Amino acid sequence: MTEAGAVRNLLEDPGARYRSGATTPTRVLDGYLAAIAAREGQIKAFTALNREGATAAAAASTHRWAEGRPLSPVDGMVVGIKDVIETADMPTGQGSPIWEGFETRRDAASVQALREAGAVVLGKTTTTEFATRHSFADTRNPHDTARTPGGSSSGSAAAVGGGMLDAALGTQVVGSILRPASYCGAVGFKPSFGALNRGGANDQLSQSCLGTIASTLCGAWALAAAIAKRVGGDPGHPALRGDVDLPPARTPRRMALLKTAGWAQLEPTARQALERELDLWRSAGVEIVSEAEDADFAALETALGEAWPLTERILSWEFCWPLRSYPHAQLSSIMQARMAVGLEMSLDDYEEALARRHAIRQSYGRVAEGVDGFVTLAATGAAPRLDDTTGSPAMNVPASLLGVPALSLPILSDGGLPLGLQLIGKMGGDADLMGLARWRLEFGANGGS
Amino acid sequence: MTEAGAVRNLLEDPGARYRSGATTPTRVLDGYLAAIAAREGQIKAFTALNREGATAAAAASTHRWAEGRPLSPVDGMVVGIKDVIETADMPTGQGSPIWEGFETRRDAASVQALREAGAVVLGKTTTTEFATRHSFADTRNPHDTARTPGGSSSGSAAAVGGGMLDAALGTQVVGSILRPASYCGAVGFKPSFGALNRGGANDQLSQSCLGTIASTLCGAWALAAAIAKRVGGDPGHPALRGDVDLPPARTPRRMALLKTAGWAQLEPTARQALERELDLWRSAGVEIVSEAEDADFAALETALGEAWPLTERILSWEFCWPLRSYPHAQLSSIMQARMAVGLEMSLDDYEEALARRHAIRQSYGRVAEGVDGFVTLAATGAAPRLDDTTGSPAMNVPASLLGVPALSLPILSDGGLPLGLQLIGKMGGDADLMGLARWRLEFGANGGS
Repeated sequence: MTEAGAVRNLLEDPGARYRSGATTPTRVLDGYLAAIAAREGQIKAFTALNREGATAAAAASTHRWAEGRPLSPVDGMVVGIKDVIETADMPTGQGSPIWEGFETRRDAASVQALREAGAVVLGKTTTTEFATRHSFADTRNPHDTARTPGGSSSGSAAAVGGGMLDAALGTQVVGSILRPASYCGAVGFKPSFGALNRGGANDQLSQSCLGTIASTLCGAWALAAAIAKRVGGDPGHPALRGDVDLPPARTPRRMALLKTAGWAQLEPTARQALERELDLWRSAGVEIVSEAEDADFAALETALGEAWPLTERILSWEFCWPLRSYPHAQLSSIMQARMAVGLEMSLDDYEEALARRHAIRQSYGRVAEGVDGFVTLAATGAAPRLDDTTGSPAMNVPASLLGVPALSLPILSDGGLPLGLQLIGKMGGDADLMGLARWRLEFGANGGS
Repeated sequence: MTEAGAVRNLLEDPGARYRSGATTPTRVLDGYLAAIAAREGQIKAFTALNREGATAAAAASTHRWAEGRPLSPVDGMVVGIKDVIETADMPTGQGSPIWEGFETRRDAASVQALREAGAVVLGKTTTTEFATRHSFADTRNPHDTARTPGGSSSGSAAAVGGGMLDAALGTQVVGSILRPASYCGAVGFKPSFGALNRGGANDQLSQSCLGTIASTLCGAWALAAAIAKRVGGDPGHPALRGDVDLPPARTPRRMALLKTAGWAQLEPTARQALERELDLWRSAGVEIVSEAEDADFAALETALGEAWPLTERILSWEFCWPLRSYPHAQLSSIMQARMAVGLEMSLDDYEEALARRHAIRQSYGRVAEGVDGFVTLAATGAAPRLDDTTGSPAMNVPASLLGVPALSLPILSDGGLPLGLQLIGKMGGDADLMGLARWRLEFGANGGS
């Protein structure tokens, strides 16, 4: 199935195929339904499907495109919704037996917006327990079913990477969008903190973001922009800004190689892939700077060394609710352990951790001033074999902790399996980050790669 | 029933009656159950009661007090939960037919914390539709059943003011805690924005706060502090800080009389009550300043003239979700109108409104530097006769828009009906505000009033 990833045109506008008349939302949906019939038994990316609702939505979308009156550029995109996000037509189980079959009576803000934009909501995609580490689901990587799809947005990435959806919503508080996107060969986009309305998404943690996983860069951006336009960001926060069409390419002059605490864990083959990628950027005249050349940058890398334990500490407190009110025996041992840490913490401990995070964000801001963006890998290597952790989020924690936008582009590989190139932007600079990614893809398409 | 309000000792510690052995949680609960049997038929403050659960919780609390091992100072307090806030043992209806009978499978963060602190959760209290203006419930003011209890925390205030609960949780985004507290003769406390964890409280609007309505000042503070200690504030925000015991009295030197846009609407008798109150503060040596004496203050009052329309504008956008996904016919005409305003707004309009709010907050901060706090009325007068608006929130909008802590003390009256004195503090200065209120009550008790 790797060819599916390889032949994709990552810059294809999701509406182009309908505008040109090359296909229709109904035919695209039928194709995905056939792919699901063929592969879902192995991949197990979905917790629920609404075939009837999706078929009706696709027919309506087909009619709109035929009349030249689509609701938006994402009209007719076939999407999945991570199963922590509420949907009025399908239950929301949060990856936990405690919430199995729970009917929410409403759509989350993001889902409401996508339906208003004409997207075809086909199904709910598996998530690890409460979008954290343990997986009660048995979702498999579409490129090798003996491997993990990553988590927590496991089903979203597996379904997109496995050719069963155009795109899907995910959430990331540690490494839950970019890591599975990297493992499954999809584009993963985590916007700036607060940039997409999390209402009804069961992810109110203080660094959690709603984001997108898509088969194209244009799709990942368009879905996010379509949401922001209709329901904004989190109440009181600046929303993601920019047109639903992909922002213009932005040529970088200087990029920072962000090593993070994940550097020591990198597979040698993955590191080689990154080094070749950096050579390509250099060949385009881009200066690549790193911690070695700058004291502020070195201080930032040192501070980011604690990104993961600091994040875990913050989340352990924030998970006190609702974990403590749940039946203990129905929580995984990982969640029980996190709860135990939270129980030992005081408000003072928590606010100290928040202050530390704030200081690291300021440190990042200073370094970011001197560069166009940051570049690194989206995972420490290809998807590992299945175990109970869904792989290491070490490369993803920094952008999550920092609250800045991050993107995984499925343009590298490690041992024949997908590996994402991660680009990280500045707070609120989501459109600029897309511009950088577009530049990279256009440069690659023009023979650079 | 007004005597009940008059004889209360507003400074009584909620645990004192149990510590002294004067009564037990079981006896207090039984008293409230008897009061409910006698009065609830007229007042209609509850949407649900869990008599069995409350009886068991009271028995357990009685046992703990008898052994001298209460879980907290609020152990054994009998409380109600506004029906926008989730409870695992009772449905959460949000005051809307759309959500009637909805079972949430979990407690909100605040409810989890109260149970952990030993509070006895007796029932759910009525709210206006989605905690806004229209009331599908027929809750009455306990001091005159021909009058409104105020809203949106209608049942919380009516039950406490009517002697059917020690205290209840409420929420305020416009005037939903302080106004009903004022009308019903209870203490109302709206903390600083973000100071109490709103998880599971269905009030994610950008200036909404979870707060308390109680028969005593100590109770209002202790409940809030008990919540903050266990589940903190909103994720990422500084939480309410301070011991669960009421902070020490703080003698003010200079207070600012905040007139707000509500000044022109004041009942003459209410204004006279406030003037007498201000004379009392002056007699204690407190300087009372107003807009007339200071250009910054005058600018603030002018800016606050737009507090209500600005708030409505912000909320109209923020209510786009989930209102737009609900069956239109099941919304009140007030909500339909608000939704129509939101539909006309763009993200630019919304962010312009947020920027205006931010500027007014800064203006307030400058004036606040020169005073110990702000004083005004908590309502434009006594509770008006029942109509479909639950009275004017004009006196409450400023503190809501500003995000600062505010308190209504049931120590004034207007035509024989309760009227609250409102004290407003500085951002994060919740404990200081309590100290001011304590000073006022101790000064009054020592013959000042």
